[in-house]
Amino acid sequence: MSERVVIIGADAAGMSAASQARRLKGADELEIVVFERGHFTSYSACGVPYWVGGQVADRDDLIARTPEEHRARDIDLRLRTEIVEIDVPGTRVRARDLASGAETWWDYDKLVIATGATPIRPPLPGIDAAGVHGVQTLDDGQALIDTLAADRGRRAVVVGAGYIGVEMAEALINRGYEVTMINRGTEPMSTLDPDMGVLIRKAMQGMGIRVVDDAEVTAVRTDDAGRARAVATADGEYPADVVVLGIGVRPATDLAHAAGLPLGASGGLLTDLAMRVRGHENIWAGGDCVEVLDLVSGSLRHIPLGTHANKHGQIIGAGVGGDYATFPGVVGTAVSKVCDLEVARTGLREKDARRVGLQYVTTTIESTSRAGYFPGAAPMTVKMLAERRTGRLLGVQIVGREGAGKRIDIAAVALTAGMTVEQLTALDLGYAPPFSPVWDPVLVAARKALAAVRRG
Amino acid sequence: MSERVVIIGADAAGMSAASQARRLKGADELEIVVFERGHFTSYSACGVPYWVGGQVADRDDLIARTPEEHRARDIDLRLRTEIVEIDVPGTRVRARDLASGAETWWDYDKLVIATGATPIRPPLPGIDAAGVHGVQTLDDGQALIDTLAADRGRRAVVVGAGYIGVEMAEALINRGYEVTMINRGTEPMSTLDPDMGVLIRKAMQGMGIRVVDDAEVTAVRTDDAGRARAVATADGEYPADVVVLGIGVRPATDLAHAAGLPLGASGGLLTDLAMRVRGHENIWAGGDCVEVLDLVSGSLRHIPLGTHANKHGQIIGAGVGGDYATFPGVVGTAVSKVCDLEVARTGLREKDARRVGLQYVTTTIESTSRAGYFPGAAPMTVKMLAERRTGRLLGVQIVGREGAGKRIDIAAVALTAGMTVEQLTALDLGYAPPFSPVWDPVLVAARKALAAVRRG
Repeated sequence: MSERVVIIGADAAGMSAASQARRLKGADELEIVVFERGHFTSYSACGVPYWVGGQVADRDDLIARTPEEHRARDIDLRLRTEIVEIDVPGTRVRARDLASGAETWWDYDKLVIATGATPIRPPLPGIDAAGVHGVQTLDDGQALIDTLAADRGRRAVVVGAGYIGVEMAEALINRGYEVTMINRGTEPMSTLDPDMGVLIRKAMQGMGIRVVDDAEVTAVRTDDAGRARAVATADGEYPADVVVLGIGVRPATDLAHAAGLPLGASGGLLTDLAMRVRGHENIWAGGDCVEVLDLVSGSLRHIPLGTHANKHGQIIGAGVGGDYATFPGVVGTAVSKVCDLEVARTGLREKDARRVGLQYVTTTIESTSRAGYFPGAAPMTVKMLAERRTGRLLGVQIVGREGAGKRIDIAAVALTAGMTVEQLTALDLGYAPPFSPVWDPVLVAARKALAAVRRG
Repeated sequence: MSERVVIIGADAAGMSAASQARRLKGADELEIVVFERGHFTSYSACGVPYWVGGQVADRDDLIARTPEEHRARDIDLRLRTEIVEIDVPGTRVRARDLASGAETWWDYDKLVIATGATPIRPPLPGIDAAGVHGVQTLDDGQALIDTLAADRGRRAVVVGAGYIGVEMAEALINRGYEVTMINRGTEPMSTLDPDMGVLIRKAMQGMGIRVVDDAEVTAVRTDDAGRARAVATADGEYPADVVVLGIGVRPATDLAHAAGLPLGASGGLLTDLAMRVRGHENIWAGGDCVEVLDLVSGSLRHIPLGTHANKHGQIIGAGVGGDYATFPGVVGTAVSKVCDLEVARTGLREKDARRVGLQYVTTTIESTSRAGYFPGAAPMTVKMLAERRTGRLLGVQIVGREGAGKRIDIAAVALTAGMTVEQLTALDLGYAPPFSPVWDPVLVAARKALAAVRRG
């Protein structure tokens, strides 16, 4: 007798789960029904800023697999259909066809929640006005592109200076906008320590982006037609023909919360290592709607990122398909491109280390991406945190140019393995003049961190 | 009372040791005397092919620190002075001034042997003819450049298809030579498995290099003036106005051998983890003249590479200076650039795994360096070996374009940590569309390797 799995959400986590489950179980054994509120499946949300900025020409380039391709694999995919209720005791969900408004109950044997995240919209006057855009989904990106195409003016305000804010500021500069970025903190990219963030600010200013620090948005001003016209802060107003929200996202778990499923402090769903919702043998959750274990601090965090969502989907698909796999956790790796800077981080920042009560040393070094004499050698800055007593690596931040960013992977693997900075200094990393100085910059930082640990 | 350390060899290992020892002990405590047969100190031997090829304009660019800079730090540096004998029981060395021929005995309290490696010159007719060049030292590079400047013709034959041979072939093409590469094996770069080496051969042929496989050089033919004019093999002769030897190097340990110091199977000196020569409390050795522990196979190997030499120098300098540090070993990481290909390897090849009796699975995948839709995304091939029963990672080989090569570091760190391919699949690597597909190619390979391990 065939089982039915219902999947809520058709992007990375949901569709990876569907595909993996289908690989393990044929249509005669497992019916897979996926409900998606939007128009698209399996797209790269991370690619939206590059589509807006023109580096990716076509929306369809961002779609890894179309609805038709999924359907060809016996996945029953229902777009523009929103799940509005999960009845956990009744093992069923209520689906609403967004076109007709018709509602239907669907029974499930297994349920996968992959509802993603929602851009944070602080409850401010005007925040829902026309011309104010989040950029989380492909539908969001399409709406923004439509606004830009209407060409109502050339002034853009980006609210928020996290990596999405920074990427969107650059995308809008690339489209010829005058861009102002409103930053609540002291430096852009608060996922880095401020002494590294300042490097990003300089690069953004260098490409003509106005960066307003320590500013809190109080309202979006609108015109008579209800369109956004300016962003107001305590210190002044910034004219805006388009407003992009890059303040961050929150887990889209209202539905799960209403169903009584367990949420963590961030509002993300709580799961076990197999991505099963805690206390629910037949419900899985993954992607931007869950909390993940931070292996460095030991705490649960909400880290919305496509690469995690894809891994979750694989794990869930294995579980749904009767196999077993686990997602051990993350170390907090992120990399992004800001103008011609590559920016990367993994593990703990100084404030994270303080928050969990760790004593640490920090060290910052300057080196180059290639041998200093090799054409194209570019400066890069590496900051490293190590635990004071043990020398255990705690975190690394990198700002540099071509070839700098992905070096964070060295630290990501070392963090996962629980290495000390002394162990790092001995790593046998790839060396040749076109690729690295004879001491890779990460090793230079490790040597200096080791010296700091030894000084105590 | 002051001690004296005598250091033989003034390149990476020797001068790193000198500098580190000087950092720890002032001139009143430690006299540092360095003997160097050649003209240069602290240069990048790995940069020589790029100097020959014209990518590095000036010889001096390859020199990290000049003799004067070393001397300014109270290091007594004696160039063009060869140590011709080590008297271990007498704790002294015999130095010959190469200009005058005068010899002097120098007592030492501590001795550091950093004599490097020597290009292999098989005992063939004509091998020592004018126009036949090794490229191990800066002096070698200068001699080759002088030969090229004499411009006796435009035909070059490179003997050997290891990474130096390949780099030199490219350098000579860049200088406008017709280049033939004589390869003893079936594919270039035998540090990779042949199924990966074929990708390199294609790239070399694509840039106009003639690659002759399965060929053994039998002689270098000379003209009446004794200059090299052709390279002979069993299957034919290849005209040559210049011949470059890239057959590999052997540890330069004749001196150490004559002194009765312990050598391994490769002829490299045997040391403990602190780089002390086995059985000799007051003698250290490092760089291209020693064997290192391969952490993956557990065997001792000769791996001449500047990055190891620099690490050895640090460790030795610490030991000489009264501190303690160790060099745990290598995993066999190497990266190089061949035309526009980036080529990298770490750990065991198939034949290495067979030699040490390991049962393994292998998998090869194609992916891209960036998200497939992102401008500049380039194909890359990753081959992975894992132990059959345990899933332990054994080795990785990568061939690709910009951004491919340094991904080998992920595998290098994972090998060092003894990770399984299952652990690899969960790694939290840096992801953003300009840097990686949502599954990094190394993770794609790990997933496929895991599936192969599970199939058993």
